[in-house]
Amino acid sequence: MKTIITIGRQYGSGGREIGEKLATDLNIPFYDSKLLEIAAKESGISQEFFESNDEKPVNSLLYILSTTYTDDNLPFNHRLFLAQFDAVKKVASEGSCVIVGRCADYALRDNPDCINIFIHAEIEKRKKRSVEQYGIPEKRAHETVIRYDKQRASYYNFYTCKKWGNADNYDLVIDSGKLGTEKCVELIKKYIDLKQAD
Amino acid sequence: MKTIITIGRQYGSGGREIGEKLATDLNIPFYDSKLLEIAAKESGISQEFFESNDEKPVNSLLYILSTTYTDDNLPFNHRLFLAQFDAVKKVASEGSCVIVGRCADYALRDNPDCINIFIHAEIEKRKKRSVEQYGIPEKRAHETVIRYDKQRASYYNFYTCKKWGNADNYDLVIDSGKLGTEKCVELIKKYIDLKQAD
Repeated sequence: MKTIITIGRQYGSGGREIGEKLATDLNIPFYDSKLLEIAAKESGISQEFFESNDEKPVNSLLYILSTTYTDDNLPFNHRLFLAQFDAVKKVASEGSCVIVGRCADYALRDNPDCINIFIHAEIEKRKKRSVEQYGIPEKRAHETVIRYDKQRASYYNFYTCKKWGNADNYDLVIDSGKLGTEKCVELIKKYIDLKQAD
Repeated sequence: MKTIITIGRQYGSGGREIGEKLATDLNIPFYDSKLLEIAAKESGISQEFFESNDEKPVNSLLYILSTTYTDDNLPFNHRLFLAQFDAVKKVASEGSCVIVGRCADYALRDNPDCINIFIHAEIEKRKKRSVEQYGIPEKRAHETVIRYDKQRASYYNFYTCKKWGNADNYDLVIDSGKLGTEKCVELIKKYIDLKQAD
């Protein structure tokens, strides 16, 4: 049985670290920015463009205009999204994996093996983490956390027509600030065991 | 160490059944409508009024008017809410327990022992459950599920100034339609073990 885990996460919640640790424990591949490389390779779009547009919201005016475009001249953000969307489906078709971000839950919405997880934490804990773990200057921590969350929400809401962080979208949601990242990994492993048991 | 569990739930998700089973397994008291009896006894308000107004949204015009009222002549819904709020705090102060609904997470928001859980499931599964378990006529299942969810959301959003079903409010959110009620109980017990471990 395949184990496909998608993880959405608030900025600074440790969702990426949880995903990495989980993938290591389960001995399966982990994807986040790696997907960009795959998408770049498959689409022929330069990887630099992916990196500079990663999970950034699309310009909705451009999107509207895009409806009259052919595949070859779709607005650039939209082409990047579609290339990532295909990359998510490709790696999931290849076997068990953990995928962080990139609307992977939506790309794999018809895949019965998929377990969709969201990790959040209260903002003060995320600010602290962004300073200590990601090296964000303390005076910019609040603004950084808010800005990244807005970007992720905007990107997700635009492409999926669902609401980022709404409990309804996910099989499992955990507050990592209350439980700690190590224990989140343990709880997710328990979830997988229960889900896959007869 | 006390174990205080609050459970918010979409109508038909099996949240109440999960709470009851959890309380039985942990050998601790379970409260849902029982809280009405306690609130009635403590407040001197007839239990019948509690039952007919249980988790129903307040009339917001009345609420605005209430700001000029004294405690004794507050709008009735508001007095009922406050009496239940006190009842939640009272039972939690007495020892470990499971409390379903009644904005218990908000009443106990400063209690470090409290674990706040939300149970949801996709609407078709909840309609099926409401027919099979609660005896709702099939042709009224959709309307019933929607109406109860709206009532609960309105009640919760009004009194807590938070958004019912938003992942941010809860320590743990589970889709019971995906996992099944028995396994939800197992997962919550694992969460409690992890949370309370050193």
